[in-house]
Amino acid sequence: MKAVRFVRTGQPAEIVDIPKPMPGPGEVLLKIAGAGVCHSDLHILDEDLGLKGPFVLGHENAGWVAALGLGVKDWKEGDAVAVYGPWGCGHCHSCQRSSENYCHNHASLGTMGGGLGSDGGMAEYMLVPSARQLVALDDLDPVLAAPLSDAALTPYHAIKQALPLLTPDATVVVIGIGGLGHMAVQLLQALTPATLVAGDIDPAKLEHARALGVSHTLDTRDADAAAEAIAAIAGPRGAAVVLDFVGAQATVDLGVRVVGRDSRLSVVGLGGGVVQYAANQPPYGCQVSVPYWGSRTELLEVIALARAGRIRSEVETFPLEQAQDVYQRLREGRIRGRAVLVP
Amino acid sequence: MKAVRFVRTGQPAEIVDIPKPMPGPGEVLLKIAGAGVCHSDLHILDEDLGLKGPFVLGHENAGWVAALGLGVKDWKEGDAVAVYGPWGCGHCHSCQRSSENYCHNHASLGTMGGGLGSDGGMAEYMLVPSARQLVALDDLDPVLAAPLSDAALTPYHAIKQALPLLTPDATVVVIGIGGLGHMAVQLLQALTPATLVAGDIDPAKLEHARALGVSHTLDTRDADAAAEAIAAIAGPRGAAVVLDFVGAQATVDLGVRVVGRDSRLSVVGLGGGVVQYAANQPPYGCQVSVPYWGSRTELLEVIALARAGRIRSEVETFPLEQAQDVYQRLREGRIRGRAVLVP
Amino acid sequence: MKAVRFVRTGQPAEIVDIPKPMPGPGEVLLKIAGAGVCHSDLHILDEDLGLKGPFVLGHENAGWVAALGLGVKDWKEGDAVAVYGPWGCGHCHSCQRSSENYCHNHASLGTMGGGLGSDGGMAEYMLVPSARQLVALDDLDPVLAAPLSDAALTPYHAIKQALPLLTPDATVVVIGIGGLGHMAVQLLQALTPATLVAGDIDPAKLEHARALGVSHTLDTRDADAAAEAIAAIAGPRGAAVVLDFVGAQATVDLGVRVVGRDSRLSVVGLGGGVVQYAANQPPYGCQVSVPYWGSRTELLEVIALARAGRIRSEVETFPLEQAQDVYQRLREGRIRGRAVLVP
Amino acid sequence: MKAVRFVRTGQPAEIVDIPKPMPGPGEVLLKIAGAGVCHSDLHILDEDLGLKGPFVLGHENAGWVAALGLGVKDWKEGDAVAVYGPWGCGHCHSCQRSSENYCHNHASLGTMGGGLGSDGGMAEYMLVPSARQLVALDDLDPVLAAPLSDAALTPYHAIKQALPLLTPDATVVVIGIGGLGHMAVQLLQALTPATLVAGDIDPAKLEHARALGVSHTLDTRDADAAAEAIAAIAGPRGAAVVLDFVGAQATVDLGVRVVGRDSRLSVVGLGGGVVQYAANQPPYGCQVSVPYWGSRTELLEVIALARAGRIRSEVETFPLEQAQDVYQRLREGRIRGRAVLVP
Repeated sequence: MKAVRFVRTGQPAEIVDIPKPMPGPGEVLLKIAGAGVCHSDLHILDEDLGLKGPFVLGHENAGWVAALGLGVKDWKEGDAVAVYGPWGCGHCHSCQRSSENYCHNHASLGTMGGGLGSDGGMAEYMLVPSARQLVALDDLDPVLAAPLSDAALTPYHAIKQALPLLTPDATVVVIGIGGLGHMAVQLLQALTPATLVAGDIDPAKLEHARALGVSHTLDTRDADAAAEAIAAIAGPRGAAVVLDFVGAQATVDLGVRVVGRDSRLSVVGLGGGVVQYAANQPPYGCQVSVPYWGSRTELLEVIALARAGRIRSEVETFPLEQAQDVYQRLREGRIRGRAVLVP
Repeated sequence: MKAVRFVRTGQPAEIVDIPKPMPGPGEVLLKIAGAGVCHSDLHILDEDLGLKGPFVLGHENAGWVAALGLGVKDWKEGDAVAVYGPWGCGHCHSCQRSSENYCHNHASLGTMGGGLGSDGGMAEYMLVPSARQLVALDDLDPVLAAPLSDAALTPYHAIKQALPLLTPDATVVVIGIGGLGHMAVQLLQALTPATLVAGDIDPAKLEHARALGVSHTLDTRDADAAAEAIAAIAGPRGAAVVLDFVGAQATVDLGVRVVGRDSRLSVVGLGGGVVQYAANQPPYGCQVSVPYWGSRTELLEVIALARAGRIRSEVETFPLEQAQDVYQRLREGRIRGRAVLVP
Repeated sequence: MKAVRFVRTGQPAEIVDIPKPMPGPGEVLLKIAGAGVCHSDLHILDEDLGLKGPFVLGHENAGWVAALGLGVKDWKEGDAVAVYGPWGCGHCHSCQRSSENYCHNHASLGTMGGGLGSDGGMAEYMLVPSARQLVALDDLDPVLAAPLSDAALTPYHAIKQALPLLTPDATVVVIGIGGLGHMAVQLLQALTPATLVAGDIDPAKLEHARALGVSHTLDTRDADAAAEAIAAIAGPRGAAVVLDFVGAQATVDLGVRVVGRDSRLSVVGLGGGVVQYAANQPPYGCQVSVPYWGSRTELLEVIALARAGRIRSEVETFPLEQAQDVYQRLREGRIRGRAVLVP
Repeated sequence: MKAVRFVRTGQPAEIVDIPKPMPGPGEVLLKIAGAGVCHSDLHILDEDLGLKGPFVLGHENAGWVAALGLGVKDWKEGDAVAVYGPWGCGHCHSCQRSSENYCHNHASLGTMGGGLGSDGGMAEYMLVPSARQLVALDDLDPVLAAPLSDAALTPYHAIKQALPLLTPDATVVVIGIGGLGHMAVQLLQALTPATLVAGDIDPAKLEHARALGVSHTLDTRDADAAAEAIAAIAGPRGAAVVLDFVGAQATVDLGVRVVGRDSRLSVVGLGGGVVQYAANQPPYGCQVSVPYWGSRTELLEVIALARAGRIRSEVETFPLEQAQDVYQRLREGRIRGRAVLVP
């Protein structure tokens, strides 16, 4: 079968022909409908993250059950499913609660998941190591579902942690209305009554936020003006929650500046910014966190939101063979919404 | 009446004779039994924190109701009480839930509380602005209760936030077994079944921890050895919670190093250290926070613990007149437990 | 001033002329804009609830600050405010967290609040015992705000308790789409992504639910059909949450029947129904509760929702003098939305 | 191999020779160290619970891994393990969070677990359907661990749900200091600082509670005196939490009487009592629940407590062959602590 593989750091992804895998006991073979193309892949290709190639890329995957390993129950051929991406040990306290993203044994696993050390979904077929990592899609289009498993699950997890602070009198600021941020904006509207402020440096992204129903949008290129505008909306309490999907130094600094006491600053974007946390800066009681992906049950909930029409991912599809070109377009910022490779 | 006053930054506390205050409507006059002497006072005396003198020092106060302002109900002369220290606006969302420590309007109040901008308890009498800031002591000795209002309330608040993580299979590390840390150790034992590790650079403090029942104690002067020892106790999960009551760069760095994913690092000590939070350092899902003091109901709970004999503060008493000498001893590290000024 | 008073059980409310009250220290005098007329008033008038008359009726009140007692800060004449209704002791653990509705000392207070033992708002002026019981309305019309202090606050409290269960894949059933239920439906849509089912025995109420955006509405007169329809929507998990705003035996029985395991059944309506809780009936892990009103900060949040246009109360206004007639119409079910007496 | 089997309602357990099972893919074969003998078994033997025999009894099991089915990783022969008892579907939202005790699909599974519809642990060997249902014991004696999987896990789950209410100023009442109650008493002391009151009708059980460190013990045969004594301890707040491990009408009635507002009444014992919940009886805001067993991660935590020496089960061992005699002794109340069958 055709597959897009990572070989080693600094080398472009290669398109190869490899044998179709066979599911061992407990495993499930999927026929891939789509695999999302993510910025993280560029990090994998360009930087040394300690992942050992070769492996098939693609960590945002959905498709149909093609074959069941021995002992797998409750699924049948043809079932449409999304794949839960961060694969943990399965038996630690965290994995047992479905939070494989915080697996206690992650350091000794040698892989972070399919497309992240193990073979992923940029191929005609993909092996999933355990049926626990499948989420039923029912009538949801797997091509649309694939990117939700990351681009929606990651902000969903960050938002769930912040929910107790997101009361009707609170203000939440989303910085970066790109792939994850535009899902965050939809998720916040579905889940909370808080006043929502969306910031970006790109007027087109702010226009997108307004099209999604956000009334407060801010150009963050002028940090002083942005901070003042947020203060005017949030009042003396300041922002209760800031979700930063860029994570550059400028956005992190803006977050620190506008967040109030007894609050949360979640830096989701890996833009290299550093939060320098010292006494009262960010303000006392602010909880700073860099969350990672989400849990299996959070993916169940994300898929339920998508099925109910509360969130929608914008998707542009490409054939598997164009993977290298798609990565190039991603590098150049020429993808609108999420690119999905369709074998 | 006699009082110990802050005048201006860089000038020693002065002992003066000032008029005994009279309670206005809603206020309560206390006869002071004891006022704790805290390291924060040294910051006030030595650094410019923006507090405007003169005001009576002392923010850890307990005593007896001496007179009630008009409209105050439910208290009577002679009632033994502790004073809740961080005074907020009283009507914002946070104050209404008893968390005046995170008052939304703190910036416009011009004071942080008695002894912190307003007249505090290092005097024969003290005005408390509202009866809501009193906690009944019943049979608890007010001299012992005074330091609890800060030295026990502050770690109690930090621990309460971390409770969901402090399961029986979790490890919690307390760094710094001084005034707050030795209360934290007692509080953790009363509140949680987690495995407790106490670290300090001072063998006498570690001996103190052992006397309080802690079985895992660590000299943190050798950071590598300490980190290794904690890893051996906590296993692959790492520390679920680190409470740093020193807050120096060395202790903060140790906390970042030993804490696991999906965890909490609370830096309570204001030792000038900075947590540099970037992706996965501290590990993903770690929540870093610099908490501030505690809430009114948390003080109720702390007093209940003390009345039940679950926590005990070590106290050395001095007459009000020796305040300057006591501050000097505090500067030189020659106070064991908490110094309390008794008028 | 004119006032509508409860005198004794079994005697109609009387319209009298009484002296305008004067605020003592800490108290606030309000000029009443509107006082909601509630079914509970009929219970007070008709049954012996242990409340001692005479007192002015009206426990859903809003108006403008008319005079401040000594010691009251942060408010000024003319401020538009809603009155928090369940008055507690103010200093117990529950009141300190703003939950005066669960005041530990309620049994010894001799009153449940204004209009419920103390003088309420069906008058030109009303005394509020403490400024802590005021919530700022800003630009919100006090006549619309008055009923929110009960008819929206009570379901809001019930919903907040259930929030962790109201995930996107969960089903919530609201029974009774009257005064409280039609607010519940709006609140659930503002606060949660759960699938919402509204049930009532009155087709007009179901029409109202549909007008408010509810897609699943059910006639509960045929309990078997209703239970079957809910099961079809909720699947094997059953309803995660049932909010019963009728509380009759038939509705309580329906709730027990449709709720799943690890769930919540809140009986808010006082229709005389009894939940007979024995092993697995309602299913294991169901939490049954009869909540009461809400907290001060929950009222802050309700007012924020109203100001943001997320909830809207339907109000019919009447002059104070028609109180007896309005009570009669309420008895006969001839009020649409909430009746508000306007002095 | 020898086994103790349920055949049909009303027929005594039979001791039979059956083939040693073989683990299929994903399954694990255990050599049984001990199987706890539980009152529930008497219900199974005597009443029609809808369970279809024959199946091997024993739902509190521990032993050593004897053979691994295909695809099982992370365990090896000889590992000492406890078996998680309530077996769910494994893939619903509840099972994914480790709460198989509240599996959404329980009604269609045809079994509640090993010894409860499927073959249990009163045999030389036992099949566990998935490795996810094993908890490592390390150095903990499996004979002591077996009863913990039910008699400690069940109260642990009930207590975890109540934790937020169990503040230092709160009172918790445990009714019934038998198999589950005497574990509850130890768990409460390990997990919470609340004031603990233990009630029973048997002076020996109260003596047991005192031996475990409980200072407030009450004879509940005189309900009026017991209620008065609890009121004197708990003050006007009333009991914050009541855990009833008897569940008879008399104990349930006592719980309703002593619990305060905003509280929790958990009826764990299946003694046939019914809580009749109507307005304010139990008081407003009381959450009544009949919880069921516990989750997989709660069992991890229970085992951690036992390994740390914080809880200890009292165990009397018997050979498998004496099962019928042991059931008879259990019926007659002649077992002290927990009987464990050792093959």
